Amino acid sequence: MVELFNDERIDQFPNGTLKIIQSPTVFSYSLDAVLLSHFARVPKRGTIVDLCAGNGAVGVFLSKKTEAKIIGMEIQPKLADMAMRTIRLNDLENQLTIIEGDLQYAERFIAPDSVDLVVTNPPYFPEKPTSLKNPNPYLAIARHEIKTNLETVIYTSSRLLKMNGRFAMVHRPERFLEIITLMKQYRIMPKRIQFVYPTDEKEANILLIEGIKDGKEQGLKILPPFFVYDTNRNYLPHMKAIFAEL
Amino acid sequence: MVELFNDERIDQFPNGTLKIIQSPTVFSYSLDAVLLSHFARVPKRGTIVDLCAGNGAVGVFLSKKTEAKIIGMEIQPKLADMAMRTIRLNDLENQLTIIEGDLQYAERFIAPDSVDLVVTNPPYFPEKPTSLKNPNPYLAIARHEIKTNLETVIYTSSRLLKMNGRFAMVHRPERFLEIITLMKQYRIMPKRIQFVYPTDEKEANILLIEGIKDGKEQGLKILPPFFVYDTNRNYLPHMKAIFAEL
Repeated sequence: MVELFNDERIDQFPNGTLKIIQSPTVFSYSLDAVLLSHFARVPKRGTIVDLCAGNGAVGVFLSKKTEAKIIGMEIQPKLADMAMRTIRLNDLENQLTIIEGDLQYAERFIAPDSVDLVVTNPPYFPEKPTSLKNPNPYLAIARHEIKTNLETVIYTSSRLLKMNGRFAMVHRPERFLEIITLMKQYRIMPKRIQFVYPTDEKEANILLIEGIKDGKEQGLKILPPFFVYDTNRNYLPHMKAIFAEL
Repeated sequence: MVELFNDERIDQFPNGTLKIIQSPTVFSYSLDAVLLSHFARVPKRGTIVDLCAGNGAVGVFLSKKTEAKIIGMEIQPKLADMAMRTIRLNDLENQLTIIEGDLQYAERFIAPDSVDLVVTNPPYFPEKPTSLKNPNPYLAIARHEIKTNLETVIYTSSRLLKMNGRFAMVHRPERFLEIITLMKQYRIMPKRIQFVYPTDEKEANILLIEGIKDGKEQGLKILPPFFVYDTNRNYLPHMKAIFAEL
């Protein structure tokens, strides 16, 4: 039995099998987590690390595609606890683990140069004294670079990854230049990029990017654009097909 | 009267008014030139420079959108001559000029920090002893970095541009990382990017990028994706609409 606290609920996709504990006031995964899980190319076996794991949704989604061991790191105790209960709810304790802790100390728990894939859906917004933040501290920490930042996430990923290991991240296109610069700086060569557009007439609002540790500079691919909604704001068929796999 | 030589022909779009001298063995502008002209945001007045002008098509297309003076630089005498005849053919001698010369010496002809917009459709392929090149030297020089290269094009553009002047280039997505790095190195901050896809299911094969000299790092936009063909390989309506403007 898995307990639910306060305003927690269990989310499940209409045709899917996975159950995720969500909470509007603590953490709910978003479309971004679904898109990242779909975009990431997983190893069949080996080790996957999910940095900034939140309620564990990305790792749970990835379990459908691989037999690799999946380790999530999450700094917020309440979120790490939600993630652990979600893992139990899906009987995935043998494949998934959650480490509650600050990702800058990831090497205390995970050997450097040992990981096949790092996935991450980190906080998107730079932390500035002037930035408008959610007054709810759980949500503010998940969205703003309060406890970690892009550079630490990318540096840590690079440290953990094996040579030729993959890094896959979902982020915002506004920070694309910074992302490219930091990935190159920390030896993760960008290789596959997909921009996600709400509809086919809007600017991109989500960036999916994959890099390879110590990869060559040649051969960057810009994947076909990914549209989420039709003009009536309904999910497009390929988006529904992704939900149905989960 | 404008003379035509050898295999030259005059191209005109079905609903357009501009005439361009083309030659299959010397130079023919491609879709890339049309897309660049459409993508570039032109100043109403002032100075526009077209580096690697080829047969002058980009400058001639831009003349439809602006009263600015347009200066093309082209290193190959035969191509510069085609461009000059195309300008005469369209009665554009008062607005357009062609300088036959190597763009690394552009500052002998054009004052530094004086240009409002640089547009360029440079050679796409790095020059390596092993690269497979067109045996036709005119086409090889237009396509491969034999007489110039990306760094020289971007450095020269930056030298010529005014502060806050714009740079607009068409290139290949494979070289995107290099382009971003060089633009930042030479103080041209990327601001607008559009990927062009042959159809909505293919990877991008053309990159349109705009930067601003001494611009801020914030505010990069990834424009809606641009598709060229429908599934039957016919031009899509918005593509035809662009041709009709020329």
